[in-house]
Amino acid sequence: MKFMVDKKDRDSSARTGKLALKHGTVKTPVFMPVGTNATVKAMRNDDLEALGINMILSNTYHLYLRPGIDVIKKAGGLHSFMSWKHNILTDSGGFQVFSLTKFRKIESDGVLFRSHIDGSMHKLTPEKVVDIQNILGSDVMMVLDVCTGYDTEKREAEEALEITSTWARRSKLHWDSINKEKGSLWGIVQGNFYEELRKRSAEELISMDFPGYAIGGLSVGEPFQVFTHFLRYTAELLPVEKPRYVMGIGTPEYILEAVESGIDLFDCVFPTRTARNAMAFTYSGTVSLKRESNKYSTKPIDSTCNCTTCRNYSRSYLRHLFNTREILASILTTHHNLYFIMKLVEDIRNSIEEGRFINFKREFLSNYRKENAKDDRNIP
Amino acid sequence: MKFMVDKKDRDSSARTGKLALKHGTVKTPVFMPVGTNATVKAMRNDDLEALGINMILSNTYHLYLRPGIDVIKKAGGLHSFMSWKHNILTDSGGFQVFSLTKFRKIESDGVLFRSHIDGSMHKLTPEKVVDIQNILGSDVMMVLDVCTGYDTEKREAEEALEITSTWARRSKLHWDSINKEKGSLWGIVQGNFYEELRKRSAEELISMDFPGYAIGGLSVGEPFQVFTHFLRYTAELLPVEKPRYVMGIGTPEYILEAVESGIDLFDCVFPTRTARNAMAFTYSGTVSLKRESNKYSTKPIDSTCNCTTCRNYSRSYLRHLFNTREILASILTTHHNLYFIMKLVEDIRNSIEEGRFINFKREFLSNYRKENAKDDRNIP
Repeated sequence: MKFMVDKKDRDSSARTGKLALKHGTVKTPVFMPVGTNATVKAMRNDDLEALGINMILSNTYHLYLRPGIDVIKKAGGLHSFMSWKHNILTDSGGFQVFSLTKFRKIESDGVLFRSHIDGSMHKLTPEKVVDIQNILGSDVMMVLDVCTGYDTEKREAEEALEITSTWARRSKLHWDSINKEKGSLWGIVQGNFYEELRKRSAEELISMDFPGYAIGGLSVGEPFQVFTHFLRYTAELLPVEKPRYVMGIGTPEYILEAVESGIDLFDCVFPTRTARNAMAFTYSGTVSLKRESNKYSTKPIDSTCNCTTCRNYSRSYLRHLFNTREILASILTTHHNLYFIMKLVEDIRNSIEEGRFINFKREFLSNYRKENAKDDRNIP
Repeated sequence: MKFMVDKKDRDSSARTGKLALKHGTVKTPVFMPVGTNATVKAMRNDDLEALGINMILSNTYHLYLRPGIDVIKKAGGLHSFMSWKHNILTDSGGFQVFSLTKFRKIESDGVLFRSHIDGSMHKLTPEKVVDIQNILGSDVMMVLDVCTGYDTEKREAEEALEITSTWARRSKLHWDSINKEKGSLWGIVQGNFYEELRKRSAEELISMDFPGYAIGGLSVGEPFQVFTHFLRYTAELLPVEKPRYVMGIGTPEYILEAVESGIDLFDCVFPTRTARNAMAFTYSGTVSLKRESNKYSTKPIDSTCNCTTCRNYSRSYLRHLFNTREILASILTTHHNLYFIMKLVEDIRNSIEEGRFINFKREFLSNYRKENAKDDRNIP
């Protein structure tokens, strides 16, 4: 792995760069669509390629439970299992154990949990999570961490931080012992919503010298202003020469904020999940395609958008597809939403290169908030 | 509309031809995928085009109920509503009223029925059905008919036939009065499983001089041999110079039988519906992709198949997609099944052109039945 910052914004921490990975070089900032079950929902690989996507995220927790690591091992790794030629970042499963399971118990050597699929008991240790991602053949792997919610007491947050640091050290040791050629293992900063703890977590991880750092434990239900504050605060603690990744960011507002704070990578189910629920991005805000007002509309989702969906299909037709629960509704709207976000991130990169990021951000948001203000789905 | 027979098989009634319609010329025999709600489920239009599909079927009954004809009229017709540049055949709704509604009442001037979607009451008359299809802008339209089931008494079947003939006459009169430029209105032969009634129905319709004829009321639950007998019997009654269409045929066995009987067009939900239920065609029979035996299989659905799915994805991956209920499972398997059927029909056309259809049929079926015999889903 190699990371190079190309251009640094004068007026903010925004920057462009290149992240060279096993399966090709990725321009940063980059948005990674989420392929939880080894598929970005409703998209074929060639659809993703046509959208210029060359890095996706997949979930270790889900793949470990289903189809099981033995199945992916037999296929020769995740890339060949899902027939994806480009980069894959896998998370560690820490967040899913925190958010999806009804039962979990943090023990000193790992986490015990009950599968949300069939109730079976499992244990993940930092070493096992590294081994799993090594079998998956991920281009970027994450260490197992302990995630905490928005309303967590300081004492509990501190404990989670301490375990996260210990596990990070163990992950790194294990990783160094098994393989230095393949992939790249990154650390995750925790510390909840306490500046002191964020600082401590960052310092401890930096001392372990990971090639990249993720900021975890944000976007877990806190208000936008709290998110912004802790994102900026934490990002500034991280070394400028290494890539920074913030997990779970996928709306234009959050993406612009993350970039301004110096973040290079982000992922989120938002553009794809909401697409399947008939929510589409437009340059004047989000719209619900199911709305009665679209019944006879021969207009596209956004008349200035150049995606296949907008060039060929009307809101009236899309509304009909959602009403009849047709698969094509998800296909076409997912395509549009991903096109929109990929275009936004490309525009962001260009604006940074041309030294006008802050202006771009201001203009984009002043248009974008127009429709959102009118919309019943005001995000965020 | 223009129909031209190119090559007539020496050993059977099979033939190749060209059907020139408003939206392009279709090589016959042709299989039409079904786009009930103005979409062939899980397929984009460019996917269909890439498969060489230039004629699909859509359902008048469904579109009339949802989104409603006013919506499609506003869009400028069905082609522009669904952004499909090629041919569309629409059925009359007669079969859906027969098969989908809980309440229907045949009256002399039309059929009264309760919507299967919301229970609302509707009445369709022969004239109204012509008007609806005219608004849809269908390339081939069907007259409203009365469909009967397999176990129907002769008296009832005769009554249905008589109403069908009366309605066909009214449809034709109405059609001639409103428009001779657009589309093409075809008659439907009924008569249930009584030779005498089939003959009478065919004669009455032929006397009305429709440009094409459909054979209705088959594939409604009767044994394969009964289907075959009545298909051949009825097809022979129809004029050789006009296209013959049999409704609801979509397995290799039925398609080969239909072609041998001199049928030029057929449609069925079978390849697409079963794909969504994990059943895939192979040259040695159908397979269920959900089977445990596919868990670790790195092989494609059919190693001799050249479709995008078989060139890129393993059975193991497809099984995983079905287990996790991923949309991509339907997309990839539908693509394969349609590719398989389109290829079969192309091979059939070539075999007729080259005077070896009966040999082709025998060879294809001798391979195809191998796996079917072993399969738990023996079709038919």
